[in-house]
Amino acid sequence: MGGVVNAAAYAGGHKARDISVSEIADVLSQSDQFVWIGVQEPDEDLLRELQRAFGLHDLAVEDALRAHQRPKLEEYGESLFVVLRTAQLASDGGRRVAFGETHIFVGPRYVLSVRHGPSVSYTEVRARCESTPSLLRKGPGFVLYAIMDFVVDHYFPIIDALEDELDSLEEAIFGGTFSQVISERIYDLKRDLVGLKRAVAPLIEVCNRLVRFDVTLIPEDARLYFRDIYDHVIRINETIDNQRELLTTALEANLSLISVRQNEVMKQLGAWGAIIAVPTLIAGIYGMNFEFMPETHARWGYPVVVTLMVAASVALYVRFKRAGWL
Amino acid sequence: MGGVVNAAAYAGGHKARDISVSEIADVLSQSDQFVWIGVQEPDEDLLRELQRAFGLHDLAVEDALRAHQRPKLEEYGESLFVVLRTAQLASDGGRRVAFGETHIFVGPRYVLSVRHGPSVSYTEVRARCESTPSLLRKGPGFVLYAIMDFVVDHYFPIIDALEDELDSLEEAIFGGTFSQVISERIYDLKRDLVGLKRAVAPLIEVCNRLVRFDVTLIPEDARLYFRDIYDHVIRINETIDNQRELLTTALEANLSLISVRQNEVMKQLGAWGAIIAVPTLIAGIYGMNFEFMPETHARWGYPVVVTLMVAASVALYVRFKRAGWL
Amino acid sequence: MGGVVNAAAYAGGHKARDISVSEIADVLSQSDQFVWIGVQEPDEDLLRELQRAFGLHDLAVEDALRAHQRPKLEEYGESLFVVLRTAQLASDGGRRVAFGETHIFVGPRYVLSVRHGPSVSYTEVRARCESTPSLLRKGPGFVLYAIMDFVVDHYFPIIDALEDELDSLEEAIFGGTFSQVISERIYDLKRDLVGLKRAVAPLIEVCNRLVRFDVTLIPEDARLYFRDIYDHVIRINETIDNQRELLTTALEANLSLISVRQNEVMKQLGAWGAIIAVPTLIAGIYGMNFEFMPETHARWGYPVVVTLMVAASVALYVRFKRAGWL
Amino acid sequence: MGGVVNAAAYAGGHKARDISVSEIADVLSQSDQFVWIGVQEPDEDLLRELQRAFGLHDLAVEDALRAHQRPKLEEYGESLFVVLRTAQLASDGGRRVAFGETHIFVGPRYVLSVRHGPSVSYTEVRARCESTPSLLRKGPGFVLYAIMDFVVDHYFPIIDALEDELDSLEEAIFGGTFSQVISERIYDLKRDLVGLKRAVAPLIEVCNRLVRFDVTLIPEDARLYFRDIYDHVIRINETIDNQRELLTTALEANLSLISVRQNEVMKQLGAWGAIIAVPTLIAGIYGMNFEFMPETHARWGYPVVVTLMVAASVALYVRFKRAGWL
Amino acid sequence: MGGVVNAAAYAGGHKARDISVSEIADVLSQSDQFVWIGVQEPDEDLLRELQRAFGLHDLAVEDALRAHQRPKLEEYGESLFVVLRTAQLASDGGRRVAFGETHIFVGPRYVLSVRHGPSVSYTEVRARCESTPSLLRKGPGFVLYAIMDFVVDHYFPIIDALEDELDSLEEAIFGGTFSQVISERIYDLKRDLVGLKRAVAPLIEVCNRLVRFDVTLIPEDARLYFRDIYDHVIRINETIDNQRELLTTALEANLSLISVRQNEVMKQLGAWGAIIAVPTLIAGIYGMNFEFMPETHARWGYPVVVTLMVAASVALYVRFKRAGWL
Repeated sequence: MGGVVNAAAYAGGHKARDISVSEIADVLSQSDQFVWIGVQEPDEDLLRELQRAFGLHDLAVEDALRAHQRPKLEEYGESLFVVLRTAQLASDGGRRVAFGETHIFVGPRYVLSVRHGPSVSYTEVRARCESTPSLLRKGPGFVLYAIMDFVVDHYFPIIDALEDELDSLEEAIFGGTFSQVISERIYDLKRDLVGLKRAVAPLIEVCNRLVRFDVTLIPEDARLYFRDIYDHVIRINETIDNQRELLTTALEANLSLISVRQNEVMKQLGAWGAIIAVPTLIAGIYGMNFEFMPETHARWGYPVVVTLMVAASVALYVRFKRAGWL
Repeated sequence: MGGVVNAAAYAGGHKARDISVSEIADVLSQSDQFVWIGVQEPDEDLLRELQRAFGLHDLAVEDALRAHQRPKLEEYGESLFVVLRTAQLASDGGRRVAFGETHIFVGPRYVLSVRHGPSVSYTEVRARCESTPSLLRKGPGFVLYAIMDFVVDHYFPIIDALEDELDSLEEAIFGGTFSQVISERIYDLKRDLVGLKRAVAPLIEVCNRLVRFDVTLIPEDARLYFRDIYDHVIRINETIDNQRELLTTALEANLSLISVRQNEVMKQLGAWGAIIAVPTLIAGIYGMNFEFMPETHARWGYPVVVTLMVAASVALYVRFKRAGWL
Repeated sequence: MGGVVNAAAYAGGHKARDISVSEIADVLSQSDQFVWIGVQEPDEDLLRELQRAFGLHDLAVEDALRAHQRPKLEEYGESLFVVLRTAQLASDGGRRVAFGETHIFVGPRYVLSVRHGPSVSYTEVRARCESTPSLLRKGPGFVLYAIMDFVVDHYFPIIDALEDELDSLEEAIFGGTFSQVISERIYDLKRDLVGLKRAVAPLIEVCNRLVRFDVTLIPEDARLYFRDIYDHVIRINETIDNQRELLTTALEANLSLISVRQNEVMKQLGAWGAIIAVPTLIAGIYGMNFEFMPETHARWGYPVVVTLMVAASVALYVRFKRAGWL
Repeated sequence: MGGVVNAAAYAGGHKARDISVSEIADVLSQSDQFVWIGVQEPDEDLLRELQRAFGLHDLAVEDALRAHQRPKLEEYGESLFVVLRTAQLASDGGRRVAFGETHIFVGPRYVLSVRHGPSVSYTEVRARCESTPSLLRKGPGFVLYAIMDFVVDHYFPIIDALEDELDSLEEAIFGGTFSQVISERIYDLKRDLVGLKRAVAPLIEVCNRLVRFDVTLIPEDARLYFRDIYDHVIRINETIDNQRELLTTALEANLSLISVRQNEVMKQLGAWGAIIAVPTLIAGIYGMNFEFMPETHARWGYPVVVTLMVAASVALYVRFKRAGWL
Repeated sequence: MGGVVNAAAYAGGHKARDISVSEIADVLSQSDQFVWIGVQEPDEDLLRELQRAFGLHDLAVEDALRAHQRPKLEEYGESLFVVLRTAQLASDGGRRVAFGETHIFVGPRYVLSVRHGPSVSYTEVRARCESTPSLLRKGPGFVLYAIMDFVVDHYFPIIDALEDELDSLEEAIFGGTFSQVISERIYDLKRDLVGLKRAVAPLIEVCNRLVRFDVTLIPEDARLYFRDIYDHVIRINETIDNQRELLTTALEANLSLISVRQNEVMKQLGAWGAIIAVPTLIAGIYGMNFEFMPETHARWGYPVVVTLMVAASVALYVRFKRAGWL
């Protein structure tokens, strides 16, 4: 059975020992300990064994198997089932953000986290918890907080990266670039924002319920910590909304700048057209085959007319330059 | 009387026997059994007979006759009346989605499902229910869940198909296609999304009420199952909203790309215009009929001037190429 | 006193007799009867007499005199005052929908309906009520339902007409028409939708209150009927919203199609411009007055150059055709 | 002390006598009378004296001094402080609407109205109140109603004027005017609508609270009157929203009409360009200096070619005319 | 330890004496005094010492250290933690507004304000409080009001500056400027509005809770003051929303004006093109080499044709002028 990442029993705020899945029952039989297991993309066998060990509900286990859930909090009797979307900066070209999922089962005496898709390991969370025994002593409820806090904290660098992209887009737009690439970058940014919003927005409700929750799982004094996460989530959500609004305005600014630019190109073309058309007309006039055109017989005719042409073109050029058409 | 698809009596989680409409009264007289009847586009006679058999309310029966209802949940005394919109991928060109309707009457001892328009038969649901006697034993409330779950599960492939279409549209837009077809595809996709939203959005309220419902029809432990549907519906709804937002952005991106493209075409036209106009001007000049034009009498005049024309054109070409106009 | 359309006393679900305004007091003195009066665009005298007869509130009567109210439900002690906007398909060119108003005063023993503007007579409602004595026996509350149901049912053909117009607009837009008329039709449709929304949206609240209402006027078993109207209103409202959204998308599609079309026209113009400009240039070259132009003295010069011109034009034509510019 | 417009004591529904500010204390000492004072743009001294006389709260008085408040209702102990925005049709060019402010202090025994900026005098309200002693007897609460009703009634002609402007804009847009002025008129109308909305929208909440208010200031039977204002405010608000929506559509229609028009101009230009370019090309061809061009030596050459030119132009003209380009 | 700006003990509405951080414990031991400390960008050491002195909660202190919080109000037992965003007009080119943060810890016997980023010192607030002992006697709750009032009052000049910018933008847009700069100014203004909204909007909830708050920290009679701030915040918020809506309309007006202008430029170009093309065609005709062109041999030929050219151009010019193309 592949998929177990880390499993340990905790007592009094300290790690008692690493355990295997088969030892879970032993730990649960000792009332002063709790189990914390982390698994990654488990196969069905493992998940079913964990289901038996902890008595998890069928519907929750099916969710954890299938993944592709939206962030949510569900109560099954005394225990909680929490789904989070994890986000990471992606390295590949097109998309900036890669999303994964974490499913957390929390009972009075156990925490089980199931990771799907791209996401950072929670060993860092575990280390951090083990280094603060006074908090870890609060039990599974605190571990839930630690994991959620970790996940939410990882949204911030993404928000920053998207803000950077928006800034760079602004520069490109108002710096005079009108290529097709800009529209595509705007669209990609929008897509990333919509994806992130999808991960973050449902967390507002989840955190809100955890703050108000009336169960022994979340100790009274841990609620302030969930309120802290709630606050972060609200902030991220607000930032996303602001960026979406600015992006919409940027898109519209882009559109009007393209039109302004079109106007300018049209004026340029018109100006150059005139500068060429006027001497062409003059040339046409002196190309007429009238016998009695005094100028054509005069020695000074040719140079004077050419000078006239140049003068006309220069005059037009200056005039258009002044009018801002060139 | 046409329209009956399937009718059976159930007892203790197992099918007791297939029955005909006239036997309903017999079954209802045995307190340990319940009837599950499925009919498709029934004529009024059949529906009226079923109304008498189950004591259905006039208004609900009229809804089931006329169809074209929106999804809803109504209570008539002890029994429930549920309207669902079923969705299927359509095979024909224009529209991607075909919608049908299912009306479900649920009482303490019966389930009656009435199908209208294109929809998959519910024999699969029946088979699935019969294979899990422990759940089917919960009675008509569970059958309602099974049908709703089945209907909602059928939305997912449609959502996927619409997402594929959006992806393919993105590619077409940013890949440089600007044909009229794109606007039409955007509009069709929007229409499908609006139609699907119309089917799904009212279900949120329906499921929500079923989860909280305080009647004996929905056994306490079945609520978790309705919560599961609720969760799916929320997710589908959210996906539709996200797609609508992305589609709007795609539409705007399309518009600005058309303008960008227009700019490019204009520049191209202008550049080629200049490349042709300049030698035309030169030709005009040497077409003038002045007697004293030294070049015209020189042997080298013609080849030099033609070379000048070519040179001017090439110079312009290079210049425009560098400026990105060509 | 002009304006009375129809007045009758009802007892036990049947019409007792037609009455005149002056006989109202007689009817009201018999506890088993109720009065149902319909008036159309009454003058103030008539309305004041009715006010005295039924004891109507001043503010409600002033509303009924002035018309131009929004749909609403107001309680004055034991009696209700309901304002509805009636809608009819208009025959004249510009607008598709003509709106009227109906004000209904309902007391424990009377129903008074006041019609303003274009609307269908309620004699049909009266006939329908009189043909179902079992329902009419429920009294004025049921008459209120019958009138509201009648008014709401008349919205459906309008909704259908607007949907037809939207379909026809879609066809025109994607069928390649870009005339000014389309923008005007889109605007007119929007205007009709906004007008209809204005008639329908407030009815949601009105019906909702009638369903929940805790007065003897609406008998307990009549609430299901108002819930039925409520359901229709919700459906109409939703359809309007969907059409508005599609219309917005159609408008944007129209805009981008105009731009696409502009692009095409520009390319066509450019292509034809080139097809003409190139032979013009060639002609210009051979119009130059150099003495030593061997071609001009050759017998084959003229036909060869003209062939060259034609060849250049044909080559350009083929090329532009292939590039999709023509 | 400037600013007093009108001050009087009322008893039993009738004006007792005109008073000066210094007599207020006398009136308040007689339990059967109440004071109604109207002041316009008072200086601080006057307002401070009135504050002492009526015991007004500091914060409310500061609001009344500074003006630029939004419409609101505040309770200070037993008394009310109401802020209204008055609106008038302005005579000057740019803006259609001029806004003023009225601050009303209402206590059990006094009403004090403070007017700022452009607004109609309330002497008309006073006259109307004095002519209906039965209502005026209800006391300061009824006076508050009378003033609010007066202010709200003055919104209607403005709404009508804005609707006229919208109609006239529609005509201009669909009548084929595309001048810069239209965009400016659209913007000005939007600005007026936003301003009016700002005056009206907060009144919904104000009226709503007055209807539900549980104080002796507003007698039970006066609530129906405030409900009437509430109804008007809702209606005005709804009309503003509808106009905003139509205006947005008009703006978009305008934009697409401009594009349509641009298309047409481009086609016209292209058509005329072709009509001129083709004979120019023909002229160019016969301007070539080939010795052996049989046509140039023929007597019929010139007239035939000129006829050809004219024919080509006419043919093109007819063709473009049919294609709708001209 | 850097960062302390000002620290003093207050008793009975008057400043008792300036104190240092180490003296806080002394002051807190005297039940009739309270401490008011202001620090600016404190280092961690100072903040930790203050945490110990006042018993602040870990999470709040971490917020105060990290800054970048959104405005909020949190309760920690008996004490409050308030975060405000301060705003100032910036002097540098790009952005109009610079934002800072103030974190306020309020307990029954202390007020601690922590400033981050650009913001005005609160010594002015302190001076104002010390000059009204009757209010300062109300204790820390009133100091909280004074600081919030000060922060909110500083939003008004910013709102005014943004309104001025909007006015100036309107003038530029409708005055006929179509440069790229306008789009950029619109975007910058939008960005400022979004930033300000972000500072102000959460304050609505904060103030609302302070008005309703049921703790001894905010004395009953101070709630009216917080209601005053609430009112200001609502007003600022509404102004921002209105400006955003007008800005959107301005952006759209700008877009349509650019299109109108493009139309005009195109017409101008077309008109001038015709004015040049027609004499060019005439010149081309008389440049044809037909032997039998009577005009070319006539003495009057040349002047007449040139006159014809001029006449054609003038005729076209007049015509286009009248049609409004020039």
